[in-house]
Amino acid sequence: MNPKKFQTPYYAVIFTSKLKMKSKAYEEMASKMFTLAQEQQGFLGIESAWEDLGITVSYWKDLESIKIWKENAAHQIAQELGRNKWYAAYKVRIAKVERQYEF
Amino acid sequence: MNPKKFQTPYYAVIFTSKLKMKSKAYEEMASKMFTLAQEQQGFLGIESAWEDLGITVSYWKDLESIKIWKENAAHQIAQELGRNKWYAAYKVRIAKVERQYEF
Repeated sequence: MNPKKFQTPYYAVIFTSKLKMKSKAYEEMASKMFTLAQEQQGFLGIESAWEDLGITVSYWKDLESIKIWKENAAHQIAQELGRNKWYAAYKVRIAKVERQYEF
Repeated sequence: MNPKKFQTPYYAVIFTSKLKMKSKAYEEMASKMFTLAQEQQGFLGIESAWEDLGITVSYWKDLESIKIWKENAAHQIAQELGRNKWYAAYKVRIAKVERQYEF
């Protein structure tokens, strides 16, 4: 991790989800949001993995950046489609990264 | 999520990793640690997904519980094997969950 960029404290948004089923439309939207997130103010990084459960952790400079991203118009549409069509369930946790180390 | 159990603030340990390669020995150890973590004091939950990248997020009552788990003898052995044999790289982030919502 880039030590200049990931300087504690910063924020992590832990998004865990279960899909009703995988679809091409979902994957296209997820990919768009992945790209769009990276263009936002205060964005630091994103990591994602899928098995039965999807886990996406995005990292942000501060709470204000997270709020702005949540309210982004294209992201709002994606969130609504997510709730109406794709997700069986999801959880969002907003957490302040206080310590870190790596190998 | 169980609202009684996951009452903010609590802690998330975000563990992201890349393996040199998958092996049976690694998978057995990971599975053992997954089970052992759940028996620890202050453990709240764990979520894990693998693609190219592994993301495991475990949830804990407080920093003290995380420290005790990090120092657990069997876990210490697993951590050392991880560094010496299995992981190409990993990052650990300790973060305080301040807010959450679900669908």
